[in-house]
Amino acid sequence: MRIPYGTMKETFRSILLKHGFGDEEAEIASSIFADNSLDGVYTHGLNRFPKIIEDTDKGLINPSARAETVFRAGAFERWNGHRGFGPVNAALAIDRAMELASEHAVGIVALGNNNHWLRGGTYGLRAAEKGYASICWTNTIANLPPWGGRDPKLGNNPLVISVPRRNGVHFVLDIAMSQFSYGKLELYRLNGKKLPFPGGYDEEGKLTDDPAAIEKTRRSLPIGYHKGSGLSLALDLLGSMLALGNTVGDITAAENESGLTQIMMAFDPRMIGNIDDEDSIISRIIDFTGSSAPVEEGGKVLYPGEHSYMVRQDNLQNGIPVIDEVWERVQSL
Amino acid sequence: MRIPYGTMKETFRSILLKHGFGDEEAEIASSIFADNSLDGVYTHGLNRFPKIIEDTDKGLINPSARAETVFRAGAFERWNGHRGFGPVNAALAIDRAMELASEHAVGIVALGNNNHWLRGGTYGLRAAEKGYASICWTNTIANLPPWGGRDPKLGNNPLVISVPRRNGVHFVLDIAMSQFSYGKLELYRLNGKKLPFPGGYDEEGKLTDDPAAIEKTRRSLPIGYHKGSGLSLALDLLGSMLALGNTVGDITAAENESGLTQIMMAFDPRMIGNIDDEDSIISRIIDFTGSSAPVEEGGKVLYPGEHSYMVRQDNLQNGIPVIDEVWERVQSL
Repeated sequence: MRIPYGTMKETFRSILLKHGFGDEEAEIASSIFADNSLDGVYTHGLNRFPKIIEDTDKGLINPSARAETVFRAGAFERWNGHRGFGPVNAALAIDRAMELASEHAVGIVALGNNNHWLRGGTYGLRAAEKGYASICWTNTIANLPPWGGRDPKLGNNPLVISVPRRNGVHFVLDIAMSQFSYGKLELYRLNGKKLPFPGGYDEEGKLTDDPAAIEKTRRSLPIGYHKGSGLSLALDLLGSMLALGNTVGDITAAENESGLTQIMMAFDPRMIGNIDDEDSIISRIIDFTGSSAPVEEGGKVLYPGEHSYMVRQDNLQNGIPVIDEVWERVQSL
Repeated sequence: MRIPYGTMKETFRSILLKHGFGDEEAEIASSIFADNSLDGVYTHGLNRFPKIIEDTDKGLINPSARAETVFRAGAFERWNGHRGFGPVNAALAIDRAMELASEHAVGIVALGNNNHWLRGGTYGLRAAEKGYASICWTNTIANLPPWGGRDPKLGNNPLVISVPRRNGVHFVLDIAMSQFSYGKLELYRLNGKKLPFPGGYDEEGKLTDDPAAIEKTRRSLPIGYHKGSGLSLALDLLGSMLALGNTVGDITAAENESGLTQIMMAFDPRMIGNIDDEDSIISRIIDFTGSSAPVEEGGKVLYPGEHSYMVRQDNLQNGIPVIDEVWERVQSL
């Protein structure tokens, strides 16, 4: 079944209102859920929605808690998320970072004590759609061993970088610092498949592409081995320092992935010179990279954000594909 | 042979002065060369020095060209490096980014048209030693295929993130977006060794740890496969957009790795609240990560910057190890 975007968003909005979300919060949250499904990230859209309602009903998410500014200086603000609904606070934070960027060329909101932001690309795309570039990241519970270590003492700390394009096909990179998430490992295992490249270590300490072996040792691989291990650590250090927020260790000690630290940094191209130059530079880079001879015959070198854009156009035109039972269940919430 | 730090720096300084560097330029440049050797990065210190003098004498480096501010707005400045000596311009740019950060909490200098900055860690460490955190990166000539492509259309675009520690053992991450540089591949090949993990593709399109096979196909691997490919692209996009500078494609078309784009971003902890909290947060993160059980018995999980610090202390105390012939050759310059 395929559901029109407007129907899906409106369904989410009315359910959120019934479960205690205010008007503005329900508007932002329903857009984020519907947009994630629209972009083909179904796990963070419709399919996640019932769990969020369940957590709200249980009191794990307080839909009326809103982030509050606790410190301002120059291009920087620190916010306390008060453990409200993560994506609403994160969306308001990137919006504020854009306002700060319009004044100072760059703007930063360091958002501590917030809940999970769902899909990082949401905030990068949100900035790009308003014509801003962005760098955003979040920390997480420890789920990745540092380089040289055996047990998870790093988060996979997703990093987002976005750059707006005049043609609307924005560049949006959204990468976790682990090569494969545990969700991906499970999916490969359930499908009886090997990973496309090594994803961690087996019990003998050898690199392996067997997902089950990695699930057993929990020695999943950071991207680029020692390099991604260092980058994950850098993001937790800089993020927690800016937000004076919970660290990966703090979150892990609480045994519950909440009260996270998120950084939203926006850059305003209008504040830094000739916008035509800037757009033509971006196209030049994209075209140059895309001109690499494809590995697969008839293939095409895509950039981050390009595939999502194509899915988005298809889903806008033809409706968003849903699992029938999930859609029916959501309507009964 | 081991040479005292002061002797090495002073030797560099007097040679630079003889070859056309001004007083301030010679002072900064001699420190950077000596510091790189001091930290154990000999390839970017003493061992590189003769080549730089040669390039200066040939007119490829103009030691009297200094970067100039061409645009200012809020926390942001754009500089034209006028293809002067890369490390001097880059050092002055991170210094200015720190000044901007002291005013706006964050400061950015986008430095276009500059020469190679040598070692990226130099600028991260320079910021950390003055108590600032930093994010810096540079683009390069194309030397890495994008994900899904066969021929190099990305730079390895080194990224630096630093965070200051009160105890002086600063966190300094300095990572290129390629898993192995061509220099490293050559070193492994000459030593008859396999890479410690796959570093690229062989002629059959299979992942390989054979350095010679990768040197042949030039299909070296980005860190984290598609993830590092996207991150390399993101750094060129955001950097070139901020600097209105040369892109990886522009640099590649000129067939000479010069006129690069470099971004220097500094964060001032003093401007963003309680500095004691911030220092204790950093220690907490470092200690948590370091508590991971080591893979090697008796091993220790180190963080980026920790090993350099130990080498630095040793070399300060016992002198900097040099290859005798190189040291003699330098003294004759």
